[in-house]
Amino acid sequence: MNHRFARRMNKIPRSFVREILKVTDDEDMISFAGGLPNPQSFPVEAIKDATSRVLTEDGEKVLQYSTTEGYRPLRELIAQRYKKQGLQVEVDDILITNGSQQCLDLVGKVFLDCDDGVVMERPTYLAAIQAFGLYEPQFHSVPLLDDGVDTEALEKILKEEEIKLFYSVTSFQNPTGITYSRDKRREVAEILTKHNTILVEDNPYGEIRFMGEDIPPIKSMIPDSILFGTFSKIVSPGMRMGWIVAPPEVMEKLVTAKQASDLHSNYFTQRVVYQYLQDNNVDNHIQNIRKLYKSQRDQMVQSIREYLPEGVKHTAPEGGMFLWVTLPEGMSSMDLFKLAIKEKVAFVPGETFYTENPETDTMRLNFSNCCEEEIIEGMKRLGTAIQKMEDL
Amino acid sequence: MNHRFARRMNKIPRSFVREILKVTDDEDMISFAGGLPNPQSFPVEAIKDATSRVLTEDGEKVLQYSTTEGYRPLRELIAQRYKKQGLQVEVDDILITNGSQQCLDLVGKVFLDCDDGVVMERPTYLAAIQAFGLYEPQFHSVPLLDDGVDTEALEKILKEEEIKLFYSVTSFQNPTGITYSRDKRREVAEILTKHNTILVEDNPYGEIRFMGEDIPPIKSMIPDSILFGTFSKIVSPGMRMGWIVAPPEVMEKLVTAKQASDLHSNYFTQRVVYQYLQDNNVDNHIQNIRKLYKSQRDQMVQSIREYLPEGVKHTAPEGGMFLWVTLPEGMSSMDLFKLAIKEKVAFVPGETFYTENPETDTMRLNFSNCCEEEIIEGMKRLGTAIQKMEDL
Repeated sequence: MNHRFARRMNKIPRSFVREILKVTDDEDMISFAGGLPNPQSFPVEAIKDATSRVLTEDGEKVLQYSTTEGYRPLRELIAQRYKKQGLQVEVDDILITNGSQQCLDLVGKVFLDCDDGVVMERPTYLAAIQAFGLYEPQFHSVPLLDDGVDTEALEKILKEEEIKLFYSVTSFQNPTGITYSRDKRREVAEILTKHNTILVEDNPYGEIRFMGEDIPPIKSMIPDSILFGTFSKIVSPGMRMGWIVAPPEVMEKLVTAKQASDLHSNYFTQRVVYQYLQDNNVDNHIQNIRKLYKSQRDQMVQSIREYLPEGVKHTAPEGGMFLWVTLPEGMSSMDLFKLAIKEKVAFVPGETFYTENPETDTMRLNFSNCCEEEIIEGMKRLGTAIQKMEDL
Repeated sequence: MNHRFARRMNKIPRSFVREILKVTDDEDMISFAGGLPNPQSFPVEAIKDATSRVLTEDGEKVLQYSTTEGYRPLRELIAQRYKKQGLQVEVDDILITNGSQQCLDLVGKVFLDCDDGVVMERPTYLAAIQAFGLYEPQFHSVPLLDDGVDTEALEKILKEEEIKLFYSVTSFQNPTGITYSRDKRREVAEILTKHNTILVEDNPYGEIRFMGEDIPPIKSMIPDSILFGTFSKIVSPGMRMGWIVAPPEVMEKLVTAKQASDLHSNYFTQRVVYQYLQDNNVDNHIQNIRKLYKSQRDQMVQSIREYLPEGVKHTAPEGGMFLWVTLPEGMSSMDLFKLAIKEKVAFVPGETFYTENPETDTMRLNFSNCCEEEIIEGMKRLGTAIQKMEDL
């Protein structure tokens, strides 16, 4: 049969990260390419206890269909955690999703008609390009500076174009590790409010701050904006438990879209995660993850300085799982990738993270899923590969 | 903020079933309105054992990110079960989804451009109207007869219109309980093949046959058609574990769409369901569900004959969870619903199950989630409500 697929399927870039993962199956490869949390950080025993408890105490119910919005006590607990951080979020403002990736799909569904204007950061989270891409918007992009988006460029584009959404990862961004400063957040809030553009703020790494001072999400300054959260980085990514925070008018549409998309998120796992959070001190657990990732991040920064040549620039993130490297002028990270693979070290070439006019001399490095010895060895190998590129 | 939502959000009907569930919260209400499996049928202890085992043996891995396609051994097991039924399905033909509702969303994403022609049964599964509706197709509908779709009407519409998909629940359909006969399946296969229309065959209840002889899905006669399956009716619906079977060319697009939609399905639960299926005889378990539902179905058929007036017609399904009632000529099931609620019995008025020109004298009754005493009492109450309608 000769299938006629929907037009939108031509608009979605194939995930280069996915392609890379095939290469990195090799046992000898040291991979900074993935985006995986360190499995050491998973609370396996506590999850086992929580699972046993919900099945013993409420077995038939936890295996039954449930509500689209999600398990109410879990939503209450999330709302309370926000309140502790100074954000006014109520239980009804929260919808449980299949990881924060589904937040992107639902926001695309609810807001985006073909050719609607969307502003992304430059570079931006690849999977957001893919998720929104299916709704065929017109992408624009605004550069990221060291302290967040270039607000002059943002304001210019909002003046010139009809822009519906601005998508931003405001803390420890994927792929760059960049965090918006307090001033930058205020500026962005003012600009978006003035131009009536919806903020879609993605905050998967917010709790993994291991240096510096916590800064509240921009949502605290734009109450009717949209915020994503997830348990992927603090409990388990395999459980696919995320959430959207949205004002009532938007929430009603999101719930309708979620219901049509998959009825509701895995109820069994919602109950397990809730039980885990009730029976354990998750803040202590998060503290341990921070310690672990800080030592890995420190090792990576140190090894870059030690083993990569002088022309290399890099971000020095205060949290999260990634840092961003800019190669010596004119060096293509895609060409380097091929040499690096031969040296048995992998990364993600930066050009996959752009919606338009990609920078070709950048790369993303993940530090959360390698031990310190691997980071040192991997950086030596990357240094060798860069040396070989320069000698070509 | 004055939100501008996407046009597609106006095309999705609000779920009346959802609205009904609010009314049926009342403890004294006997509800035939829901679509829930009987929680008695959930293998709670065996799931507890399986969960404990996967967390003990492979804890860090089962909590980590995983592949979009799903856990390969689980997909192999599903393929093997199809082979036992005489269907040539390979492991690579299977994508694990969040329940079969997500199959609908992914098929809509991959195939449907705005105004593409889709043929639905008349009546059809409400949530399929909602899921496809978000992709703004042009819906057409073809009546269901006692032995499946009206093939003359189907062929007529495929001749007259450009139709991309035909959506069909071929065994124990929701809402009617109707099953396509062997001959009807063959006819439908011929017509669809001739007109190059893709079959989307949904088979959530196929294993819950408690009378008559098993008939293979139409997919067995159209190898490159699309088939949905689910563990919701044989293991647990709350775990949201379904799957799509599709040929390679379509599978590639489905995987891309799934990745953009939520990266992958809950890996922890995939591992638990697989372990459950490995360590237990699920066929014995299914046999018990069949026995349970058969006695409930028999009681409902008997009670309809005993307590509802003569003009009432009904289907007598050989499996599944629903039967379909046609009221005496001219009686509105929506008006009856209001009276029935006062008598403390609920059902779903049939008109919610049509894409166009709804029949107003029909209703769906669920028999899987009430015990026999409740079925008897509920039917008495429904009889009283109909009597009152007739006396008005």
